[in-house]
Parts: sequence; structure tokens; C-alpha cells
Amino acid sequence: MGMVGGGPGAFIGAIHRLAATMDGEIELVAGAFSSDPEKSKKAGETLYLDAKRVYASYEEMITQEASLTGDKKMDFVSIVTPNHLHFAPAKLALENGFHVVLDKPMTFDLKEAKELQRVVSATGKYFCLTHTYSGYPMIKEARERVKKLGEIRKVVVNYPQGWLSERLEASDNKQASWRTDPSRSGKAGAMGDIGTHAFNLAEYVTGLRVTKLCADINKMVAGRKLDDDGSVLLKFNNGASGVLMASQIMAGEENNLTIQVYGEKGGLEWKHSEPNSLLLKWPDAPSQILRSGTGYLSEVAKHNTRTPAGHPEGFIEAFANHYRNFAFCVKASIEGRQPNEEWLDFPGVEDGVRGMAFIDSVIESGRSEMKWTEMM
Amino acid sequence: MGMVGGGPGAFIGAIHRLAATMDGEIELVAGAFSSDPEKSKKAGETLYLDAKRVYASYEEMITQEASLTGDKKMDFVSIVTPNHLHFAPAKLALENGFHVVLDKPMTFDLKEAKELQRVVSATGKYFCLTHTYSGYPMIKEARERVKKLGEIRKVVVNYPQGWLSERLEASDNKQASWRTDPSRSGKAGAMGDIGTHAFNLAEYVTGLRVTKLCADINKMVAGRKLDDDGSVLLKFNNGASGVLMASQIMAGEENNLTIQVYGEKGGLEWKHSEPNSLLLKWPDAPSQILRSGTGYLSEVAKHNTRTPAGHPEGFIEAFANHYRNFAFCVKASIEGRQPNEEWLDFPGVEDGVRGMAFIDSVIESGRSEMKWTEMM
Amino acid sequence: MGMVGGGPGAFIGAIHRLAATMDGEIELVAGAFSSDPEKSKKAGETLYLDAKRVYASYEEMITQEASLTGDKKMDFVSIVTPNHLHFAPAKLALENGFHVVLDKPMTFDLKEAKELQRVVSATGKYFCLTHTYSGYPMIKEARERVKKLGEIRKVVVNYPQGWLSERLEASDNKQASWRTDPSRSGKAGAMGDIGTHAFNLAEYVTGLRVTKLCADINKMVAGRKLDDDGSVLLKFNNGASGVLMASQIMAGEENNLTIQVYGEKGGLEWKHSEPNSLLLKWPDAPSQILRSGTGYLSEVAKHNTRTPAGHPEGFIEAFANHYRNFAFCVKASIEGRQPNEEWLDFPGVEDGVRGMAFIDSVIESGRSEMKWTEMM
Amino acid sequence: MGMVGGGPGAFIGAIHRLAATMDGEIELVAGAFSSDPEKSKKAGETLYLDAKRVYASYEEMITQEASLTGDKKMDFVSIVTPNHLHFAPAKLALENGFHVVLDKPMTFDLKEAKELQRVVSATGKYFCLTHTYSGYPMIKEARERVKKLGEIRKVVVNYPQGWLSERLEASDNKQASWRTDPSRSGKAGAMGDIGTHAFNLAEYVTGLRVTKLCADINKMVAGRKLDDDGSVLLKFNNGASGVLMASQIMAGEENNLTIQVYGEKGGLEWKHSEPNSLLLKWPDAPSQILRSGTGYLSEVAKHNTRTPAGHPEGFIEAFANHYRNFAFCVKASIEGRQPNEEWLDFPGVEDGVRGMAFIDSVIESGRSEMKWTEMM
Repeated sequence: MGMVGGGPGAFIGAIHRLAATMDGEIELVAGAFSSDPEKSKKAGETLYLDAKRVYASYEEMITQEASLTGDKKMDFVSIVTPNHLHFAPAKLALENGFHVVLDKPMTFDLKEAKELQRVVSATGKYFCLTHTYSGYPMIKEARERVKKLGEIRKVVVNYPQGWLSERLEASDNKQASWRTDPSRSGKAGAMGDIGTHAFNLAEYVTGLRVTKLCADINKMVAGRKLDDDGSVLLKFNNGASGVLMASQIMAGEENNLTIQVYGEKGGLEWKHSEPNSLLLKWPDAPSQILRSGTGYLSEVAKHNTRTPAGHPEGFIEAFANHYRNFAFCVKASIEGRQPNEEWLDFPGVEDGVRGMAFIDSVIESGRSEMKWTEMM
Repeated sequence: MGMVGGGPGAFIGAIHRLAATMDGEIELVAGAFSSDPEKSKKAGETLYLDAKRVYASYEEMITQEASLTGDKKMDFVSIVTPNHLHFAPAKLALENGFHVVLDKPMTFDLKEAKELQRVVSATGKYFCLTHTYSGYPMIKEARERVKKLGEIRKVVVNYPQGWLSERLEASDNKQASWRTDPSRSGKAGAMGDIGTHAFNLAEYVTGLRVTKLCADINKMVAGRKLDDDGSVLLKFNNGASGVLMASQIMAGEENNLTIQVYGEKGGLEWKHSEPNSLLLKWPDAPSQILRSGTGYLSEVAKHNTRTPAGHPEGFIEAFANHYRNFAFCVKASIEGRQPNEEWLDFPGVEDGVRGMAFIDSVIESGRSEMKWTEMM
Repeated sequence: MGMVGGGPGAFIGAIHRLAATMDGEIELVAGAFSSDPEKSKKAGETLYLDAKRVYASYEEMITQEASLTGDKKMDFVSIVTPNHLHFAPAKLALENGFHVVLDKPMTFDLKEAKELQRVVSATGKYFCLTHTYSGYPMIKEARERVKKLGEIRKVVVNYPQGWLSERLEASDNKQASWRTDPSRSGKAGAMGDIGTHAFNLAEYVTGLRVTKLCADINKMVAGRKLDDDGSVLLKFNNGASGVLMASQIMAGEENNLTIQVYGEKGGLEWKHSEPNSLLLKWPDAPSQILRSGTGYLSEVAKHNTRTPAGHPEGFIEAFANHYRNFAFCVKASIEGRQPNEEWLDFPGVEDGVRGMAFIDSVIESGRSEMKWTEMM
Repeated sequence: MGMVGGGPGAFIGAIHRLAATMDGEIELVAGAFSSDPEKSKKAGETLYLDAKRVYASYEEMITQEASLTGDKKMDFVSIVTPNHLHFAPAKLALENGFHVVLDKPMTFDLKEAKELQRVVSATGKYFCLTHTYSGYPMIKEARERVKKLGEIRKVVVNYPQGWLSERLEASDNKQASWRTDPSRSGKAGAMGDIGTHAFNLAEYVTGLRVTKLCADINKMVAGRKLDDDGSVLLKFNNGASGVLMASQIMAGEENNLTIQVYGEKGGLEWKHSEPNSLLLKWPDAPSQILRSGTGYLSEVAKHNTRTPAGHPEGFIEAFANHYRNFAFCVKASIEGRQPNEEWLDFPGVEDGVRGMAFIDSVIESGRSEMKWTEMM
């Protein structure tokens, strides 16, 4: 694996490395960790990389590595830069024959997203978009169990954070700085950063598609340039209704993404604060607590767990599940084999296009005086 | 106390009696329990009432009791009939000099509500509308603590039930029957039955007023005549945003009304499933769990608690708190005293008018193609 | 009902009155609320009693009331005095033809307990000992469900309180004063006050009997005369093992009595902090959350619930369940009927003797150098 | 790192590899994964090891690697075999100049433990015993916060499992087989396997030492050769009392190790089922929920966390914390530097000796008719 971005101070770059390497299937062998060559070099040293494979730019890394052969060449590129720097390295990597892992939201805007979709399709390379939450085994179990609930009627997803309750971007907080800056994040703030996670989770778990939405989009903190809070009414393609909330000004909240789905026959509930449990609710029978690591779960949930019941797995393991499945596919590709069905269960370019369409739609709806805006 | 309604099979009538009499301040002395005189008589026997004070109709009860004097006369009337039978007995009771306790929503429509408000004002009698949830001590504490959160930015209230997931009104379920019938419930189903509770709670805890809203109102179960599900975006008079959900088709849900309020400095959370706790959340300090019955609570919370910490109080006690405060006021009135400030803390006719305005507004919004509808 | 004790400042007296009268089956008609006649009189006024039936002593109340006839006479006596004043009024009441409700622990010592057992048996009157916790519907459900767990192997009961972490008895705290005083409490402190509750709960839920025990009994606070903390290893008559903890110096704990029972096939868990839930655990299937007020519970659990699922009932309702069942039995007795089986489900004199034997055994074991002490 | 044991089917070996390598500070370079050379070889292939460094026995690995120089040589040995195969490879590794990581309990018996302590001391090598639970950041925080509780009075540790509720050792369950076999596990079953974890946690968090104990040790499942359940009364060197429970027959329990500590001023509680929270309880102030990843924690807690608040870390990360701290020490040693204070915070040989003394004492106490047995 070669990495683009993820130098000093980059929260998500470190997470990507932990997640990628934890299962012993992926090795970090190259990197262009910063647009500042000196910083890139230092990051490479800290990471025990061969100095020759620490590059001054992603262009250099991709072209140099592409000229290597066989085992000496990196197998794929992982891109962990801010949103405005997603598209170019991803496209270049794909066109030079590399598989790609890319952080979300996929691109700076919907146009780039559709172009990237074209490139992925044209090159036939594997592409993984790191919507972490669908990597949790109990989310995969939820996707199985939702089939037992009858026709789905109601979906509630809530992604509450509080870390932008103050105007951190006015200080030197690196995360706050780019995530609230339209020139680097794109047209959405909270809706792009975390709203897309919630949106992806709702569609992933239910298998439904949002068809129209009605958004209340807010900039609650004075001086902020992008939305930091929003609530969205949803309609799904089967007629179900839903609510999506994403906020970064719910002071005191950490990162407790939750999803609740209700069908004719029962409901389910998952909370990121207790990710190893899945609650099933029934009108006329006791609620059930399903737990990761147990024998009664689906094969796909088991495949995405490392430890027995009662040994909590967390965010890094969920993240690692995407990398591991992706790695299995890449390895199969190298060896000329077909991947297993369950390995293909990681978010891809279609999820990325949906996410960018959500951003466009939700921001448009926020500005509209009409109740409903069709999904783009 | 004389009771109107609450005969056999009436869920809420029995709750009213438990709540009214539990503290030993109120005695049930008269009743018109059913429009069927025979049923009323039998109910009176079951309740150990003097047969002479079990009446065939509310008109009879009110006029007869009004002709009695002093201790021999009931002091107030409690009305626990379906919505379409709220206004007339309440008005008659008030005009005959009785204080009134009335179940929610206050009336059949907004017009009746405003007329009742006029009558209460004209007669100067005490009037209590039983929005149970503001009777919980930790809700009263929440109302105190909300002042420490800085300017309020976000309010989320959710009232999930699942008991109408099937079309119970097609069977002989008495509760389902009238609550889904427009001729008895009024223009709203779930929004009237439980949405008004959520609305009242949001305004009670925050002290804010909803100014406009945007509603997605649904009839999810085929054949149903009134809404059984809805989600509403809210705007408050200080600029805060909010979300209100009320549903009776979230299959597997019981009655877990929740409220979350976030200000500039922190947040708070209360859940009906654990009503003796209040959670305070802070951006840079540990969350705090406040518990009923403890010494560090506000005086108003303490006044509305009977047991020491760790001895859970529940729905009946919360309900009883309204009755007890009301009884203290009535007693003071009889004795020519001014009531204590804290006794006046029960929902009144203004809450009732707000609730009926909410119903009108939310149903109107549900039909509108425009995003925002002003509160009526 | 006539009450002995429960004057001003008496925590448990007020609870008894709330519990006794809440269901409208019992009326407080007489009382000897304090050994100080003036205090008794004032208490009677506060409680709206007929002044003639407020007595200066329990002897006066019992003999006077016994001379009344029919409806004019109280039907039973409720005794809520400190432990050293349990036996005499109970015996006198029984021997004068009154049924008796008595607070726990039953008597001052085991000798009194056995004598009281004899009197109850000889008089044939109903006798209820208010071990509150077996009044909870989910404890009654636990007693049913325990039969599905196979042979019981392990029982853990824990009753943690923290309110005696400081030497409150040195101040004017009325509760602390008598509960830590051997001349009023008897030979045990925490073990008598709350340990007997835990012991009763373990035997009630499992249907097993403790045969021997091994106790570590402590006086943690300097200057305290009775135990304020203890942990006890238990052996049951089927060979199961257990642990019982009772402490009043677990600083910060309120009153979260818990019980866990494990059999060959599964386990169950109940917590007083969430009394309306019962958790069932299975080795190879999801855990189940049973909830009070639901349709799938046993008849006995339903009989002891007033509200539908999701409307929390608490300590007062649990307490009231004992009073209500007792009242149904008394009423049947007055009317010459046999009581229903489920009405007889309240703690009786045998529970009281077991509790006093537990106190003797556990204190003896605390002093012993040998590991096991046989239950007396 | 070279690994001894951990071949196919070995639960804990896989955990060790995940934990060791996740932070990118440790690389697996050699291994003797099985006493069967063929199995060892295959394991090495699966793990992408250089075939030359996959050895047929630990003796071969240690002597061969010892003959290599500088970067070509492994830096330390990780031993993940059953208990009876701990001592010999650990001793050999230390005496050949390797640092050692060893799974718990440390040895087969106390005699071996004391000999190993001597060897560690004599060789001056780093030695880490993988008592996972002290690796959790909130346990480290607990150790800091315990100082605010005043003199400690009560400690409760409970390690409930249910997986040995049936006689799995009669089947071909590899884990059950050796863990219930005295010739491989030593003289204790549950007490050795998980009781030592609970014991270590109690001493780690409180900083106290157990001085005597009283144990009820059981073999609940017919035919089992070692204890599968036990409850132990504890006395600590400051006079505090405690209870330790460890069971593998609490049917339906997973692995929810808990610890509660109470001092004069307050209490704390941690549960493995929610490892990122620490609850502080106060007699006269709201309880506080401390959360991992927040800014208000101690430096040592922060040092042992990778992700911001609300991104759950779990068992593997806790395990990895020990490996990472150990690796920092080893690296400092190689580079001739003194380690930071906080790196030294991993369980060592003294913990191992304490654990083996606990096993001897608790089994002895289980057989004794006397109440108290002094810790050996």
C-alpha cells in the first residue's frame, strides 16, 4: 500500500494505517504524506519506510511505483487527503493500474464523482470508499435481520457531534480548519463530513434508496461558512419515511451515530456507543440483544469479527474490515482468482456517487422554500 | 373529586384515579363514569362510592353537586372522556363553580380550546391539563438546568410507540377504536394523542415557543383514517432548530418519550424509560447523571418526589404530582390562601391552546407543499 | 387500616400509607403514630383522620378498635415502628382479632420471631411482612422464568447503599440513629436492614433454601456499633453456590439491589434501578429483555401491574402490590370467601422467621473462625 | 518478534499477533508456532514469514536467532502456549538475551514463577505478562481516580463467563480441552484462567495488596477436573474488604469483567462490556461518566488511546497497549535510552508471581475448613 496524505496531525491518516495493517494482510511500503516534501520524508521515517519510497508528491509516487515490477511495486493506493484533493490522485492511480482506497466524501463535487465512477468502470480496478460504519459486524447483521421486519415503514438515523460548538476554525485546529472551509470541503460542512455517513448507513442497512428529501440546514455558530447542523425528512423508494440528523453543534455529544429501522413486524436499533450489540424489538415478544462474536449470527457478521463474544471490537476493527475485504479482493485479482462474495462487501464508487448526490440535494433543499426536493 | 368518564375498560380513567388519590389529598366522592347509567352505577360500586353520588350523566353530576354545600360538595371535576367529550363538561363544570382537571389534548378543535380558555379566565377557577410528563421531577430539574446550557440551539423530542402497527381499530380494541376515529379524536391521530405531549414537553423544558414547523404526516397502516406517524422540523422563537417525532407504528416500541436539548455550552437528555435520571453533557468535562431523590436537586424537583434516591418513582407518581399540586391550589383557594409558587407548576389552559394550535398547524403543514407553516 | 408508628420524620411510615391506599382498596381510619400522644395527634390531623381514632398508644388503639363492631372497626393493623417495637403490637393485634402488616425485619430477635409465628398460626389471621422487592412484577416473572433455567448453580444478590459512609448517627439523623443502635435494631445493622431483603429475594426467586453460609461482617466506619458492610458466601439446598452482599458504606450507591441467577441452561438478571425489565441470558441465543406491562408475561406478573408497557411503575407500586394482595385476602376473609391463589403471594411469617434466622446465622458466622456456619 | 505457539486454532495466539503489530512498532519475523513442525511451517506461510525463520521448536528458534546479529535478529519472544509450556521457553529466551512477552497465568506453579522472577532479575531483560485488562485506558484512569476516593473500604471484582456450562472438554474443543486439564493448566481452572485477571485488576487499580482470602471453589459440571466457579472473600493490606468472583458456568455470560471500588468519599465502576467509560459515584453530587479519548483524562490514559472520544476502542487495542509500551521499552533499550515512566506501565514478573500465589492460596482456601487463608 502507498499512502497519499496522512502526515503529521492528520487524524484520519493514522486511523487508515492502523486499520490497513492490523490484520497482517497489508503492508505500508510507500507514501506521499504531505505536499511539503520535507514533512513527507519525516513521516516516512517515523513509519519505518524505505526512504526511497517516500515521495515528494503523489504524482511522483504513482508514476515511480508504476514503473516498478511485481512484488517490488505497491499494489494499491490509499488516499486520505481533504476532499478537494481526492479526485486527482484517485484518477491518476486508477489510470496507472492501481486499485484505490479513498476517504469519504468521495470528491469535491458531484461532477468529479461521476467522472471518477467512469474511470473506475473503465479501468476495472477495485475501489473502496471508507464509510467506516458499514464495516461493523452488527451493522452487517442488521442488514440481514432487516429482512425479517416486513415492509419497512420508518428509518431514523442520527449522527450527533458537538466538537464544532465553538468556532474552532478561528484557532489553529487543523481538523476544524479544512472541514469548515468551502474551498477544501466542498459545498457542505456537517452534511458532507458526517451526514454522508448517516445517509450511507441508512441505505446500506435497509437496502432502500432515498427518493426525495426536505432539509433544514443551519449554520449555528456565528461566522461559520458551512453548515454545522441539519435535520432532514426522507422518503424512500418503497414509500417509507425517515429522518436524518447530522450536527456538529450538539454540545457534549461525541460520535454516537445511531440507526433505527421499523417494519410492519418489528424494529431494530444500533448505536455506535455500543457497537457490538444489535437490538431487535418485537410488538408481542421480548426484545432481543444480538451480540458480536456469537455463534447465532450470520456468516457475513462472523467473517467481519476477530474475537469471541464479550471481547469488544471497535472503530479501528470496523475500519479494518473494509481494508481486509478490499485486500482479499486485490490479492485474488493479483492471483487471477474470483473474490468471495463476502469480500466484495465494502463501500464502492456507487456509494460515493450517492453520497455526493445527497450533498447536492440536501444543500439545495436547505435553500428551497418548497417542502420536497428530489434526490439528484 | 367527581369524575366524568373512566368507566370499565378505560385505561386513562384508572390512571387518573390512582394518581389523584395516592397522596391522600384527594378523595373520589362522585362520578358519572359512563354515558350508560347502568355502567356508571356499577363502576361506582366497584369504587366503593356512595350510590347517591354516582350519576347518570355529567350534567346531572355537576348540577346536583353544585346544589350541595360545604364539605358535602365535591371540590373539582376530573374529565377523562375521549376528546370530543372534553369541552362541554369542562365548560359546564367551570361555570358551576368547580375547578377542573382535563385529559389531553384539551378539546376537539382549536375553536373549542380558545372558548375554554375564555371560560377559565372568566370563572377564575383552577384548570389542569394532564400532560403527564412535565410531572416528572427530573423534567422539572431539566427545566432548571437548561438555563445553564447557554443559548439553546437544538431540541429533539421523540415519542415512539408501536401499538398501532396493525389495524387494531378493525378489532374491538376500545382504545384503538376512538383514538383513530376523526369523529371522536379530532383531526389528528398520533399527533394529537402523543405529538401534543412531545410538543408540550419541548416548550416546557426549554421555555421557548415554536414559531413555525414543517411536517411529514403519514398514515402508514392501510385503511387508517388518521395519522399514525409523523416527523416535524421545528423553529423556535430564539432561532433554535428542532425535530419532533411521534409515531404509533414504530413496531416494538413501547412509550419511550425522549427529549434532548443542546445549548452553546452543553446538552441534556431525558428518557421516559429511565425517568429518574437526567443526563447532562459537557464538551470538556465528564457527563453527569442527576438522580431523583438526591439532595443536590432543585427545590421544585424535590417537592415533586416522595422517595429517597434509588427508590424509583414512575408514571403514576408523575401523574400524581399534577394532581397533588392542583389539590394544594384548590385547598388554598377554599381556605382563602395564596398558593405557593411551586404548586402552580402544572399544565394549564394555555398549554391546552398551544397543543390544539400545534395540531392544526402540523396537520396543515402535512398537507402543504411549502416547507414552512407558521404556528397558528 | 390502623397504623402503629409512622409519625413525623418516619420515612417508611409515609411509604406504607402511599402503598396501602393507592389502589383504593384500603382506607387509613385509625392510628397510634407516635409514643408521644401529642405527636400522634398532630400526625392524625395532617392525615385527615377522625380525631377520635387517633390514639395515644398502640395498646389503646387495639383495645378500643377491638371493641367497635362491623364497618366501624378497622380491619387490620399496619406496624411501621423500629425493630424493637415490632413484636408486642403485632402480637396484641393478632390476639385481638386483627390481621397484621409488619415492616421487616420481623422482630428484634429470632426468639420473638418464632413466638410470633406461633401466634399467627394460632389466631389464623393474615400476616404480611413488607419485603418490598418481591412485590415487583418482574421479580414475580423471574420466579416463573427461573424454572426454565435448568438446575440452578449460582445465585448472586447484591444490595449496595452508601448513605452510612459517614457516621450520621452522631448527628440528629433519625433514620441513622435507630438503624445503627443495637438496642433498637437488634444484633445486626446492614445485614438486618437490607441483608434480609437480599436474602428474602434470593430464596423467593429461586425457590431454594440457604443451608449454610460464610460471612465477612464489617464495621467500616469508626465508632459504629453495628455492621455496616458484609459479604456472604452461600450454599443452597440443591448444592448451588451463591454470594450475598449488603453494604451501607459503598459511597455513591443509592439502592440498586440486584439479583442474578444461573442454571444449567441460562441465566437471569434483575436490577432495582430498572425494575420494569428482566434480562434472560442464553448460551447460544440472543439475550431477551422482558418488560412489565406486556402481553407475554405470566398471569401473576400481569396481576401485579397497573399500567401498559412503557409506563414505568416503581417502588411505591411494588410496595402497594403486597398491600393490595393482602387487602384482597382480608376482604375475602371478611366476606367468608377463599382467596385466589395469586392474592396469597405476599411475604409472610415464615419469611420473617427465615430472615431472623439469617441475621443470627450471619452474625454468628462473622464471628467464627470456621468457614461454614449452618443456617439456624 | 518471534512467537512460540499460536498455531492453527489457537485463540490467543491470533490476538497476540493483532495486538503486537497493530501500531506498526513491532514486526513478526520468526516463529515456532507448533510442536508439530509441519503445522508450524504452514502457520508461517499463512503469516507471510520468511520460511527460514519458521522453526520446528522453540529451542531451535531461540538458539538460531541468538546466533544472528543486529537487525537480522528478532528483538524479543512472545510465548502464547498453554500454561505448562510457559516456563521453559521463557527461561531459555531470557538466558539467550531476548526480552519476553508471556501469556498469563505466568507459569504452571508458584515454584516456576519464583524461578522465572529470579531469571528476569538476573538477565535484566524486559518481561511483560499479558493481563489485558490493565491495558484499557479507562482502567489506567481508574487507577488515577481511585486516589480521590479517600481510604478504600470495599472492592468488588467479578469475572463471569458461561462458555463451560456444558462439558465441552468431552468434545474436541481445543480451548476447553487444555484449560480444564490439570496436566496442562496447573492446579486451577477458572481461578487460573480468569480469576488471576480479576485479582490482578483489583490490585492494579487500587494499588492495594490482598493479605488473606476465603474461597468457595466449585466444580459445577459433573466430570470436570478443575474448578469452573468460585467466589472469594478478600482482605487487603489497608483493612479494606473485597469480593472476587470468577466463573465459567454463569450460563449466558460472555466476558463482562467488572470492578467496583469504594472509598470514604466516593466510588468508581468499570465494566468490560462498555470499556470506554468509567463511572464515578459521589454521595452528594451527580455521578460522572468519564470517557476515553477526551481532553480531561490523565496523561497516562491519553497515552494509551488512539482515537478521539466516541470512537470505541476495544480488546485488541487494550492488548496492543501492553505490546506498544513494551516495544517502546525494548527500542529504548536497543538504543541505550532510559524508557519513559509511562512506557513501563505493563504487567511484569511481580504480577506473575502474585498471580501464581493467588492460585495457590485460593485453591488451598477452597480446601480448608478455616475461614481465612493467608496469601502465600
